[in-house]
Amino acid sequence: MPQPPSESSPLLPAEPAIERPWDVKSPIQPDSSSISSSVSSGMDLTDVLRDVIIGFSDGLTVPFALTAGLSSLGSTKLVIMGGLAELFSGMISMGLGAYLAAVTERDHYNSEEQRELNQVDCCLPQELRDDVFCILEKYSVSREAAAPLVEELCKNREQWIRFRMDFSLRLEKPNIHRAWISGVTMGLSYLVGGLIPMIPYFAMDKVADALFVSIAVTVVILLGFGYVKNYVAIRNHRAGLWGAIQTLVIGVLAAGTSYVLVKALDRTDV
Amino acid sequence: MPQPPSESSPLLPAEPAIERPWDVKSPIQPDSSSISSSVSSGMDLTDVLRDVIIGFSDGLTVPFALTAGLSSLGSTKLVIMGGLAELFSGMISMGLGAYLAAVTERDHYNSEEQRELNQVDCCLPQELRDDVFCILEKYSVSREAAAPLVEELCKNREQWIRFRMDFSLRLEKPNIHRAWISGVTMGLSYLVGGLIPMIPYFAMDKVADALFVSIAVTVVILLGFGYVKNYVAIRNHRAGLWGAIQTLVIGVLAAGTSYVLVKALDRTDV
Repeated sequence: MPQPPSESSPLLPAEPAIERPWDVKSPIQPDSSSISSSVSSGMDLTDVLRDVIIGFSDGLTVPFALTAGLSSLGSTKLVIMGGLAELFSGMISMGLGAYLAAVTERDHYNSEEQRELNQVDCCLPQELRDDVFCILEKYSVSREAAAPLVEELCKNREQWIRFRMDFSLRLEKPNIHRAWISGVTMGLSYLVGGLIPMIPYFAMDKVADALFVSIAVTVVILLGFGYVKNYVAIRNHRAGLWGAIQTLVIGVLAAGTSYVLVKALDRTDV
Repeated sequence: MPQPPSESSPLLPAEPAIERPWDVKSPIQPDSSSISSSVSSGMDLTDVLRDVIIGFSDGLTVPFALTAGLSSLGSTKLVIMGGLAELFSGMISMGLGAYLAAVTERDHYNSEEQRELNQVDCCLPQELRDDVFCILEKYSVSREAAAPLVEELCKNREQWIRFRMDFSLRLEKPNIHRAWISGVTMGLSYLVGGLIPMIPYFAMDKVADALFVSIAVTVVILLGFGYVKNYVAIRNHRAGLWGAIQTLVIGVLAAGTSYVLVKALDRTDV
């Protein structure tokens, strides 16, 4: 039975990141009918797009819901104050959170790599071999068939570590320059997403009219965004439509709850 | 040069998930000095803990910041209304978002697996072999050394696909029962995290006093939570202290911005 994790063995591999959905990278396959020509590295565009989607998605939902709720109190100024306060808090929480998560992920990768390096130096050759055998056995590969590969891999210290990081620890080397790009991208996407439902409140005097326009604009954008988001991920129109419905349902549920809640609380003595 | 992704080749592997940081699972190593005894599967506890941390972290920051900002307007009732509206919107956005992301991730995995199955059936044996060679070449393994393993792996259709899913696509089979657990866990953690800074406003009449107590309580919890969060992830006290500072800085920055913003807007004519 495994003992509890020691000081040097993490229970969890890295800091909670709001932005790790696509670390498991998808190959961009030049031609899906040809397996051997597949490329297994993700694009930079993928990372940026991922951050934009996460930030925009949350930004569009929560500030929209909050402003819809506050609008029931009848003051445009209050809606703008509450909305902007939420918008900037959310942007900071999301942007800085993503930045720090990326930094911690990098630190975690480096410390794991260092730990592997130390282990390689103090392990017996047979232990190194057994470790690779262990990984390959999961794919029902016999020791006999794996032996030449294991022998060659164990002669190359760096490659043995890379193999283990990839196959056993399943850690991918994070791009060190991406931490701040990720934070800025996600924070700004949250800001842009959250500003959209608020524009009517800036432009219109009557709060009921502004709410109406805000709902109309946000519904259209939620549908379009949900479609594009899923279409980009799964590349078929059915998934896109499903994404549009999902995004809309979340937005409407959140805004509806917020509106009813504020309206109900306003009538009672809290 | 890779062509643009086709209808069946996703640009991004799955829906944006706010909850994917630890899909790249860490082994719980019974003894960090013994490589060969390492176990490479994560625990269920890890997944739940991850969802709790993400939900609690965001819940503690944004509702705290918003209520601090609204408190500058002087009305406890307004703080409670705005805070609860944000809390429930955020909970819905986060919980449902996590649930749907997990569902999409599962669908994505299944569709990729099906695509691999179809490819295996229509590929020449040499193409299957070349694909495995291609993966192993990245670790500087010669074709000669890899040949027996490749031969054996290509005889077993299921194992070839698993190998490719793991090593080339780097996709991990999602637990199908986890989608709703993940959504509920994250949503409730957001709710609990966000309720903590609001309790003083429920209990106290004077909004300035409530703000003071709210800040004190939240600062303590941000520090403790930041420490535990990083300690659990990296298993050393320095990382824990660093986590405590990070979490506090994000919370204070968000709340400070929110407070100053609302105060400034309140003085001007919007």
